[in-house]
Amino acid sequence: MIAFVNQHFVEEKNAVLQVGDLALQRGYASFDYLRSRNNILLFVDDYLKRFFNSAAMLHLQPKQTKEEIKNILYELNEKNKLAESGIRLILTGGYSFDSYEPAEPNLIILQQKIQLPPPEKFNAGVKIITHEYQRDLPEVKSINYLMGIWLQQKIKEQKAADVLYYNNDLVSEFPRANVFIVTKQGTVVTPSENILRGITRMQLLKLMKDKFPVEERTLYLDEVRCAAEVFMTSTTKRILPIGQVDDKIIGDGKAGPVATLLNKMFVDREEQIVNKAETVKII
Amino acid sequence: MIAFVNQHFVEEKNAVLQVGDLALQRGYASFDYLRSRNNILLFVDDYLKRFFNSAAMLHLQPKQTKEEIKNILYELNEKNKLAESGIRLILTGGYSFDSYEPAEPNLIILQQKIQLPPPEKFNAGVKIITHEYQRDLPEVKSINYLMGIWLQQKIKEQKAADVLYYNNDLVSEFPRANVFIVTKQGTVVTPSENILRGITRMQLLKLMKDKFPVEERTLYLDEVRCAAEVFMTSTTKRILPIGQVDDKIIGDGKAGPVATLLNKMFVDREEQIVNKAETVKII
Repeated sequence: MIAFVNQHFVEEKNAVLQVGDLALQRGYASFDYLRSRNNILLFVDDYLKRFFNSAAMLHLQPKQTKEEIKNILYELNEKNKLAESGIRLILTGGYSFDSYEPAEPNLIILQQKIQLPPPEKFNAGVKIITHEYQRDLPEVKSINYLMGIWLQQKIKEQKAADVLYYNNDLVSEFPRANVFIVTKQGTVVTPSENILRGITRMQLLKLMKDKFPVEERTLYLDEVRCAAEVFMTSTTKRILPIGQVDDKIIGDGKAGPVATLLNKMFVDREEQIVNKAETVKII
Repeated sequence: MIAFVNQHFVEEKNAVLQVGDLALQRGYASFDYLRSRNNILLFVDDYLKRFFNSAAMLHLQPKQTKEEIKNILYELNEKNKLAESGIRLILTGGYSFDSYEPAEPNLIILQQKIQLPPPEKFNAGVKIITHEYQRDLPEVKSINYLMGIWLQQKIKEQKAADVLYYNNDLVSEFPRANVFIVTKQGTVVTPSENILRGITRMQLLKLMKDKFPVEERTLYLDEVRCAAEVFMTSTTKRILPIGQVDDKIIGDGKAGPVATLLNKMFVDREEQIVNKAETVKII
């Protein structure tokens, strides 16, 4: 696989940084993650906007413009020729003179094959657990996943697929995904504050506009436990139904009708984008 | 400067990791930092004990034993021949297959020259600001300094030297140091919970035992503001008096008598260790 480091495309095994980089020394770097389908990058402008926003919030200034990084992404995607892939962008705190003060950032871009959850997994729904925690600087996508990774052991012990964060009874998000519920009255609700604004979340809210009763607001943990449906959204999962929250079965424990319909709408939207891009390529 | 990566001593500029390491991808690594004086490593067993404890808490298993890493530290210290130095140990989450699951850790050891705060700085005291925050997994020394580094801009704007974390009016610590106060009644107090147990803090508590009235307990922010003396302790600072907390001047704003006496006791203890080690070397 080809990667990109600072100014150059390199073989991934040669993509290295000196260990003095602030990402390695202090976990200080902004991050983002986008996806390709049929070798077409999806929602690339949305992801780049967020990546630049996270960098600015961390006082990091990329050497390249948004347009330049977009071109690097297209070129990388051409080189690697993966049908379904994930692309990571990391902008680090750089080689700091005192291992604390951010310096000139290092930019890393990596691409890898991915596989979205298969229909069986979607239909079966997954179990999640809950944990009291609030991510630092929640609107910034940084490389700080200390808590998420630390909780992996507990997740496995509980035979769960993921962990939902809450704080003072208010639900926020998963380490790498947003949460939605469908109330017994049929309203779709997703938390509005103290979250990372997921691109899948945003695209889904656009698709639902004027078609579903939707509320972006504070969401209580009790509402999640009593919901008709619960699902998560993320770049690598699109929509993934949740059949169990801790010991509580949600609905019949399987994918509900709203999640199923929304997933279809989302896949249709992706296909629309891919078809349009392929038509442009042929012309 | 010579560094150590996994099994080998290398020139620092050649000390690199592939960008797929979990430290870089997800800020997941345990960390520690010790100091040499007159080319003698100080309190090395205490630091290694904490380093191994942090690693275990993060479910990371070093390839080397404590004794082996100690020998590497001695050898590195011999090679670099620095009088006053800091040594960083980082044990990363390794090259994870999915950029999330910890793998076989990478061990990095770096040494650099340091200078402790000069007497003028000690005597003048520093200004600090306060910020509501609780570190994740506080008893683990990890590379997660996202909040500390993010706050550097605010610290500079306020012409301060550091930031003291508190949560619900309870004081915990600085991003890289512990906090002590001396009450107007002459009792030395330091927080007991939700902190990283500093080695300087621990050594100082040992030195004070049976000589000073000392309390390890919850400490309120108001007590800090109303203290006769406030100071911080850390590996790179020993003891550093604090003359101002936000807008509040502490005492006469300069180093107080207790901090001055404790610092002398701490330096004496260091000299004792260094003299003993040098005697052993000569014999």
